[in-house]
Amino acid sequence: MAIAISAEKPSSVETGLSPLSSPPPVILTQDELKKIAAYKAVEFVESGMVLGLGTGSTAKHAVDRIGELLRQGKLTNIVGIPTSKKTHEQAVSLGIPLSDLDSYPVVDLAIDGADEVDPFMNLVKGRGGSLLREKMVEGACKKFVVIVDESKLVPHLGGSGLAMPVEVVPYCWKFTAKRLQDLFEDCGCVAKLRTTGDQPFVTDNGNYVIDLYLKKDIGDLKVASDNILRLAGVVEHGMFLDMATTVIVASELGVTIRNK
Amino acid sequence: MAIAISAEKPSSVETGLSPLSSPPPVILTQDELKKIAAYKAVEFVESGMVLGLGTGSTAKHAVDRIGELLRQGKLTNIVGIPTSKKTHEQAVSLGIPLSDLDSYPVVDLAIDGADEVDPFMNLVKGRGGSLLREKMVEGACKKFVVIVDESKLVPHLGGSGLAMPVEVVPYCWKFTAKRLQDLFEDCGCVAKLRTTGDQPFVTDNGNYVIDLYLKKDIGDLKVASDNILRLAGVVEHGMFLDMATTVIVASELGVTIRNK
Repeated sequence: MAIAISAEKPSSVETGLSPLSSPPPVILTQDELKKIAAYKAVEFVESGMVLGLGTGSTAKHAVDRIGELLRQGKLTNIVGIPTSKKTHEQAVSLGIPLSDLDSYPVVDLAIDGADEVDPFMNLVKGRGGSLLREKMVEGACKKFVVIVDESKLVPHLGGSGLAMPVEVVPYCWKFTAKRLQDLFEDCGCVAKLRTTGDQPFVTDNGNYVIDLYLKKDIGDLKVASDNILRLAGVVEHGMFLDMATTVIVASELGVTIRNK
Repeated sequence: MAIAISAEKPSSVETGLSPLSSPPPVILTQDELKKIAAYKAVEFVESGMVLGLGTGSTAKHAVDRIGELLRQGKLTNIVGIPTSKKTHEQAVSLGIPLSDLDSYPVVDLAIDGADEVDPFMNLVKGRGGSLLREKMVEGACKKFVVIVDESKLVPHLGGSGLAMPVEVVPYCWKFTAKRLQDLFEDCGCVAKLRTTGDQPFVTDNGNYVIDLYLKKDIGDLKVASDNILRLAGVVEHGMFLDMATTVIVASELGVTIRNK
């Protein structure tokens, strides 16, 4: 999606309004929309909470904001559970006290972005590569607030045409990739190893990621989920079904909040 | 099971027969029974086959035997797909040509042991720690021959009182172990991290193993399987359902062969 017209160039925006009747509307960048959604989500945070800290460009804004509120003394007694090594580093740099699921098996609230959100609040996550830890932490949450800009809304998962990631063990990954592709053959699935440069991308857990590109709706998501998980060699997939309790969507028209 | 009276001590065996009527029956050790089952299984092997090579004390005999037949020229043109680093080393030392599932995604025949076999030929495997690679290779087989001594026969999986292994990612393994234990709470499940000395046992894939000890039958195995696999943090479990095509059982009374 191309919301690329910056606030510095209002003259390029066709408003249809007289310049005297109101100031020209400010068209926000995608990153500004992400930040709006993230800040809104942090309004759900209360002092004393155990917080799941998401990973990715949208969640980063939420973690920054939590750090800011802690510094200002507006939030106290927070314990963060990071969902990746990257978020761990970010949170440490912001002075957010951290722990893990072994010590805090119940998490009050998690805030994280998503790559796709369907009308039933099912998600695709993990294009950033942290799907396993995100799923562990967010599966342990009482409330899971998803923050997205409107470009992430899809009619069905896989509908953006972008990748549906699956974390697999490196051992015979080509074999596993082929089995994944065969599983969704009827959906025109193409399975590709995720790479960084000419090397396989390696997750925080030492695994690889197979990205599935789907041409059609994969149908019943729970059936698809079980079929993927039944393949030996698969560690986890990026479909987060029935997990989000709130979705905050930032768009040009404002912020919408949907609850389960 | 204690079949520990060796063939070297026939005098300790009560035969109930006159020494003149027939020679005293030789009571075999458990290892000898394993070897009998293994040799029987290797009779299924034909020249030109792609062979899954199992892991563990029983499978080791089969791999040794395949190596012997290759040396003798009675088998030719075999490609072995080892199910562990250990079996890989054994096969290399025997001169068995090796490859992997990436190159040979269809395997003609696999031979492997099992820790438990139920009346429906469902298995528990992985007490040796190689359950994931075994499941990948044996899931790719046209025929999967399981070789056991009679001590491995159980009325239901988990029925031996020994461990049902689950391979998990090291990240927050205590959390995953607790969720596994909770999943089978009604069966009196106790989940324990497998260790070697005072360190966690690490699989060939860099993961940990949680051993589940069950006091009662876990009921519908396919439901149990899906429930385990749905836990984020679980990589694979040791139940091999509907995979064995032949089970060869060696006992004091002889060898029995059961086909699916």
